[in-house]
Amino acid sequence: MPQSKLYMHKVERDQLTGWPDLAGRIEGKVHVLPIRVYYEDTDFSGVVYHANYLKFCERGRSDCLRLLGVHHNELHGTASFVVRRMVCDFLKPATIDDVLHVETRFIECAGARMELAQQIKRGREKLFEAKVTVALIDADGKPKRIPPDMSKRFLSRVESKN
Amino acid sequence: MPQSKLYMHKVERDQLTGWPDLAGRIEGKVHVLPIRVYYEDTDFSGVVYHANYLKFCERGRSDCLRLLGVHHNELHGTASFVVRRMVCDFLKPATIDDVLHVETRFIECAGARMELAQQIKRGREKLFEAKVTVALIDADGKPKRIPPDMSKRFLSRVESKN
Amino acid sequence: MPQSKLYMHKVERDQLTGWPDLAGRIEGKVHVLPIRVYYEDTDFSGVVYHANYLKFCERGRSDCLRLLGVHHNELHGTASFVVRRMVCDFLKPATIDDVLHVETRFIECAGARMELAQQIKRGREKLFEAKVTVALIDADGKPKRIPPDMSKRFLSRVESKN
Amino acid sequence: MPQSKLYMHKVERDQLTGWPDLAGRIEGKVHVLPIRVYYEDTDFSGVVYHANYLKFCERGRSDCLRLLGVHHNELHGTASFVVRRMVCDFLKPATIDDVLHVETRFIECAGARMELAQQIKRGREKLFEAKVTVALIDADGKPKRIPPDMSKRFLSRVESKN
Repeated sequence: MPQSKLYMHKVERDQLTGWPDLAGRIEGKVHVLPIRVYYEDTDFSGVVYHANYLKFCERGRSDCLRLLGVHHNELHGTASFVVRRMVCDFLKPATIDDVLHVETRFIECAGARMELAQQIKRGREKLFEAKVTVALIDADGKPKRIPPDMSKRFLSRVESKN
Repeated sequence: MPQSKLYMHKVERDQLTGWPDLAGRIEGKVHVLPIRVYYEDTDFSGVVYHANYLKFCERGRSDCLRLLGVHHNELHGTASFVVRRMVCDFLKPATIDDVLHVETRFIECAGARMELAQQIKRGREKLFEAKVTVALIDADGKPKRIPPDMSKRFLSRVESKN
Repeated sequence: MPQSKLYMHKVERDQLTGWPDLAGRIEGKVHVLPIRVYYEDTDFSGVVYHANYLKFCERGRSDCLRLLGVHHNELHGTASFVVRRMVCDFLKPATIDDVLHVETRFIECAGARMELAQQIKRGREKLFEAKVTVALIDADGKPKRIPPDMSKRFLSRVESKN
Repeated sequence: MPQSKLYMHKVERDQLTGWPDLAGRIEGKVHVLPIRVYYEDTDFSGVVYHANYLKFCERGRSDCLRLLGVHHNELHGTASFVVRRMVCDFLKPATIDDVLHVETRFIECAGARMELAQQIKRGREKLFEAKVTVALIDADGKPKRIPPDMSKRFLSRVESKN
């Protein structure tokens, strides 16, 4: 699909819905997604249930890819991204009604794999962070090289280390 | 699939796993599934999050069908059961560590539809009840007549009203 | 809490976060909340898992109350809203990447109870609808009269039937 | 609480429910919990949603503690266990109707912290594994030394490395 058509697709789905920030924003090299904590996210201990931070991160990755023009539906059938590894640090608890920010950064992209760094913050407080390894697999579950035009889009978002 | 093969399938998946009651039990006309309340099921108000009772009911229906020899995997591709309507009464709250019983009863089965009555209890206390309408649909989402040998198995479990 | 302070609270939590529509919008008598369908919301049949529509509705109710100045944290300790009854019709399936709208309308508010009507739409297509009975309960789980200044705010949003 | 009373508590809650294996079994040094994969656990890609393996692990830890006589309700109010860190490897996908086994092993227990190793298997296939760091915290969220009689019970389950 040519870049222009991808862009139209994105415009149609996100901007034209009338909710311009529904998929968050790309600010420089970082994708930021706001998330409200609802009843469903908490547990009886009074705070967000630990596994739900992984859901929040997945929403962040999905919307980051969306804003870069990569849609689940387009990939699906032929290939899909799956999580291979997550190193998760649960630093501080979030509570009901909180507005959180999921920050997603590309660290590396090579072959069939991507490395991402994700953080969940409440204002300036870091509540959660994760290193995430994602792989592209084909319909048989075998690793598949990330298409060059796609990896190019990811790599353009990698922060230089200098 | 002949009844005997269905039975072997059930035996293989449930009895031979070494956890004989994992899919609950059919006691007379009623299927009973025990469910433990874990952290994930509760919310910050201290009790089970309301939508999770619907998950518990779906587990009950799945395991009831399983013990009657109807497996998701067999149906899938050609047809699947979907929930059309649920009338849900949330009577009393369940809390962490509770052992609940999901009771599933067939009320009716005709054409593409089944009516079920489900209750969630803690001991003798009724905490939740629902009337559930389930429909069989084909791959295009259109209603599909429940195969006679399947509806026969369901109807044999309907309590007579006399 | 005086109306002005409630308003400041709302402003602080929602407008000043930099994500003005995070809690949706009140359009006339209807609260509208946009919701994106993510991986977590779907199941292996390819569409949104039925119980998750109840989660979407709860998000809609929470944000509707939020925009009317009623916060979970304020009520909690002394009282909280619980769902007593839901009559749910599952009309059409939603799929991954869909943008849905949860519409919430107040139907009635008397004593300890509120009746709401909720719909989930994709564009003009209605996918799900529910009648919801919510009750205010005290710390012991007993019904508690909805405070007059609160019910007044709800009733001002009830559509007249003429 | 004396050991005998803890045991009675366990007996009452688990054995006397009539579902003897509901909390799994301790086999030597390993706690094993069987888990059925239901609709709710899968996503539209056809397999179990990645974050749900963390839920399965939490069920395993809860039931392991339960069989060792440690109940959420007893700790709560004064202290609770929280997950600090999880290193998760997603090896192979699980699918609907699968029977999985969550294996939980104690690795270390010192001060306010416990290290556990968890695996999720389908038969002999390892699908998921995690190293989990859990901390005991008091009502203010501060680390709290694990009581000696409790850590003794955990340490008695640590496999010797020889």
